[in-house]
Amino acid sequence: MTAPLPADTLARLKAVLGEGGWSQDPERLAPKLVEQRGRWRGATPLLALPKSTAEVSAVVGICAADGVAITPQGGNTGLVGGQVPQGEILLSTDRMRAIRDIDVDDDAIVVEAGVPLAVVQQAAADAGRRFPLSLASEGTATIGGLISTNAGGTQVLRYGTMRSLVLGLEAVLPNGEIWNGLKRLRKDNTGYDLKQLLIGGEGTLGVITAASLKLFPVLASRAVAIVGLASPAEAVTLLGRAKAESGGQVEAFELMGRQGVEFTLRNIEGTRDPLDRPYPWIVLIEIASGEPGGAEAALERTLTAALEDGLIADAAVAQTQAQAQAMWSLRENMNFGQKPEGSSWKHDISVPVSLTPQFIAEADAALLARWPTLRIVAFGHVGDGNIHYNITRPADGTDAEHDANRDAAGEIVHDIAASLNGSISAEHGLGVMKTEEALRYKSDVEVAANRAIRAALDPKRIMNPRVLF
Amino acid sequence: MTAPLPADTLARLKAVLGEGGWSQDPERLAPKLVEQRGRWRGATPLLALPKSTAEVSAVVGICAADGVAITPQGGNTGLVGGQVPQGEILLSTDRMRAIRDIDVDDDAIVVEAGVPLAVVQQAAADAGRRFPLSLASEGTATIGGLISTNAGGTQVLRYGTMRSLVLGLEAVLPNGEIWNGLKRLRKDNTGYDLKQLLIGGEGTLGVITAASLKLFPVLASRAVAIVGLASPAEAVTLLGRAKAESGGQVEAFELMGRQGVEFTLRNIEGTRDPLDRPYPWIVLIEIASGEPGGAEAALERTLTAALEDGLIADAAVAQTQAQAQAMWSLRENMNFGQKPEGSSWKHDISVPVSLTPQFIAEADAALLARWPTLRIVAFGHVGDGNIHYNITRPADGTDAEHDANRDAAGEIVHDIAASLNGSISAEHGLGVMKTEEALRYKSDVEVAANRAIRAALDPKRIMNPRVLF
Repeated sequence: MTAPLPADTLARLKAVLGEGGWSQDPERLAPKLVEQRGRWRGATPLLALPKSTAEVSAVVGICAADGVAITPQGGNTGLVGGQVPQGEILLSTDRMRAIRDIDVDDDAIVVEAGVPLAVVQQAAADAGRRFPLSLASEGTATIGGLISTNAGGTQVLRYGTMRSLVLGLEAVLPNGEIWNGLKRLRKDNTGYDLKQLLIGGEGTLGVITAASLKLFPVLASRAVAIVGLASPAEAVTLLGRAKAESGGQVEAFELMGRQGVEFTLRNIEGTRDPLDRPYPWIVLIEIASGEPGGAEAALERTLTAALEDGLIADAAVAQTQAQAQAMWSLRENMNFGQKPEGSSWKHDISVPVSLTPQFIAEADAALLARWPTLRIVAFGHVGDGNIHYNITRPADGTDAEHDANRDAAGEIVHDIAASLNGSISAEHGLGVMKTEEALRYKSDVEVAANRAIRAALDPKRIMNPRVLF
Repeated sequence: MTAPLPADTLARLKAVLGEGGWSQDPERLAPKLVEQRGRWRGATPLLALPKSTAEVSAVVGICAADGVAITPQGGNTGLVGGQVPQGEILLSTDRMRAIRDIDVDDDAIVVEAGVPLAVVQQAAADAGRRFPLSLASEGTATIGGLISTNAGGTQVLRYGTMRSLVLGLEAVLPNGEIWNGLKRLRKDNTGYDLKQLLIGGEGTLGVITAASLKLFPVLASRAVAIVGLASPAEAVTLLGRAKAESGGQVEAFELMGRQGVEFTLRNIEGTRDPLDRPYPWIVLIEIASGEPGGAEAALERTLTAALEDGLIADAAVAQTQAQAQAMWSLRENMNFGQKPEGSSWKHDISVPVSLTPQFIAEADAALLARWPTLRIVAFGHVGDGNIHYNITRPADGTDAEHDANRDAAGEIVHDIAASLNGSISAEHGLGVMKTEEALRYKSDVEVAANRAIRAALDPKRIMNPRVLF
């Protein structure tokens, strides 16, 4: 599919990038060629470090002419291997870190692709605004990568995924041409919305070079609680009530099963369960409101009614910022708490919110029927129907045994998600990890349309050729 | 581009549609062949009235095989002529009016393309939820058409355009195949998001047959005011403050220039200006909150501060539902109030919110320099940067004279919007009215990408061939 890199192409790439604009130094390349957990390792003939959109255009133009493949990379935090080259040119956005503009009247910030998420959050805060996307890797993950993977995180329930936060894009298309779609309009109906293809396109339809993003008001009140309940079904009901009571101002609604809570309490120093008894499921709920005291009041109304009619068993409301942080720390340590217990199978599925209890019940039953001593850690963004359904090996098992069954288990879990009209990748994308598998679940019609669009925009398939269809 | 309709094709179309599934009766066809204001009149060899997705698929499949063009039509309320056939098969969604499902846990409703917006709003209300899209033609406009044109309206500021409200689509692609993308997931990253191409695609990439849409909570408090101010610049500042004070709960922020207010007061019985003096600009502001009393409190805080520091000159807060309706009636009658004053040029532009004052100032200056006695009616959704910039003929002029200058004026207005990185069609789409003109403002790169995508999905260009690029 991709020709080997001719010496002449390499020379021309180096020439347009100039001094400091490329590297073949193994030490410089090393951290960019391995995925953070070490699951994918790659190789590249050249690390391209363009410092401007024009240089990206020159690089892609040369590669398009010569049929040379490119893998774009932002902060290298992706979890499905889409950013790790296997012989392609590695195009990094490391040197494209300008904040081009911020305008509070437009509630918009315009940044280059290589800007880390945390920098955007801080710039928004400095301007008296908020950029709500939030996820564990926010110090490293870059805007270009977050858009290319349509990142999610904990605030999606209220603000949507990255797709909802993008006002406009600038990108270099697979033919090397610069598309300036860097608008900051709230309404614009003048043809196909091209940016929507690049969002979540995993770098296959071009290189995003800059984006204009929506900003939001800072909210005056914020309230956090941990609730104990009997099963995920009660969580879904509670979510509906919290949305109704707060008028849609639920910022986070994170479900955690007991097994995961126990792992965290056991393995992460300083964590504690704020509830007196070990409920089978707990939910972290956060409400935020523009009305001073509004978040506390809506949370109070929700929890009082739910306790009175027995929907929930107990609730602890954070009285201080420190208590709120301690509650969040339970949730944020779910992955870390699981690690010392041995190898885990991890799944990033979504189903309709109403079917999350059914998904968990069916998946538990199917896996335990085959492997009765598995330790199931189900947690995540139930407000979005997105469960991180992670399965740790039996306490008396070995990692090797467990790893050997990963694919078989994945098929069981993904089949159940698909049978409930769900998704096998809610927020991580397909990358190289799930592209083949996704073909099992996509209709031929949809795959054909994907391929037709890609072939139309990238006829030589030079952009991230091993990713997507 | 399109072959004339062979008798054999016609016979096969009638056969798959069955009795009651098609019409060639001129009386039956007449209302579907004229745009509501009479600006476009059309013709069709056959009105196809499929009653199911399978029938739509059969019709499109026959047309694709035979190279026969199709114009899809919903409620026929479009303002840019995109739904009026000029010799194409007219495919109406009139008989596809089922509400397939509504689920309050998922906050989702699944409806067929021919369901009118008002029916969706009512179904949501009956289930204790809200579907926020709202516009003048909501009793007639259908979900299929509203999605195909990415409709806007008065609630975009808070809830976004139709694009933000769609969870999934079912559609018949230009090759006749059914694409089932009728998901109700909040997160799903498994390839290109095909629905985004159909949304706002103006019927050129297929026929939308059903959609799953987001529902929202009913809000506990709601407050409306009319504010008097000196210029649009103060309106932009007030908007920012209202968003901050309410935590983003501004539902509508509608600017109206004096000329339009005067027309409405003069020509529409029962309207009145709630302010004591004739301010050059007024703003209708509506805030809604999940917190009982929260909307009133946020509005009060915003207006008190703005009056104290002189940002605004006066404000009237609705004390009753009837007063709120009277305030809205001023805004809703802007178009009707203008009509008796003679012919108008109308524009549906958007610019970045911060540049709305500059747009109005530059456009006013440019038009009045050439035609000093024009009467300029600027109003609209300043919260989205979307101004309906409508120009009524001079009081002593004639409609014919005014109409003769429509295109020249349009070019001036659109050039200014484009120079401010704006759009020549904020919420109406391009249709046949603005497709040619849009080519003046789109980059070659963007037009080429539009064309490549279209050719990939509809190689014979049978879907609404005269619309878009």
